[in-house]
Amino acid sequence: MKARVHVMLKNGVLDPQGEAVRHALGQLGFEGVEGVRQGKVIELDLAETDADKARETVTEMCEKLLANTVIESYAVEIA
Amino acid sequence: MKARVHVMLKNGVLDPQGEAVRHALGQLGFEGVEGVRQGKVIELDLAETDADKARETVTEMCEKLLANTVIESYAVEIA
Repeated sequence: MKARVHVMLKNGVLDPQGEAVRHALGQLGFEGVEGVRQGKVIELDLAETDADKARETVTEMCEKLLANTVIESYAVEIA
Repeated sequence: MKARVHVMLKNGVLDPQGEAVRHALGQLGFEGVEGVRQGKVIELDLAETDADKARETVTEMCEKLLANTVIESYAVEIA
């Protein structure tokens, strides 16, 4: 079973990587880019076959390791 | 208009970040994690209101800046 986790900085947390990308896009001539946020995506290949259990496990992984919940939010997708 | 880009290392390209996450999950007692790949997600806020044009522009951004197409693949979602 595959799982995908998105980890993004929370709104209000400064995102220097996103700002750098926005600036670089402007320099390359791309107009109308109003905001850029950069985050991580983590794709997991799990032995678990039950979707609910997989979601529970992956949520626990996020809380313990994958996201810093002080400044980051996460979203879990099970496919 | 919002766009989301996923940038992942291509299959066959070594992913040390993903390997580090897999190892750390094992150390934390999570079993049955068969593989981990880590990539980037970039969320763009665009002034463009036409979805097709937005997709075209974002694809060009990927080719020119957001992805290193030698070792990375990308996927564009327009929302």
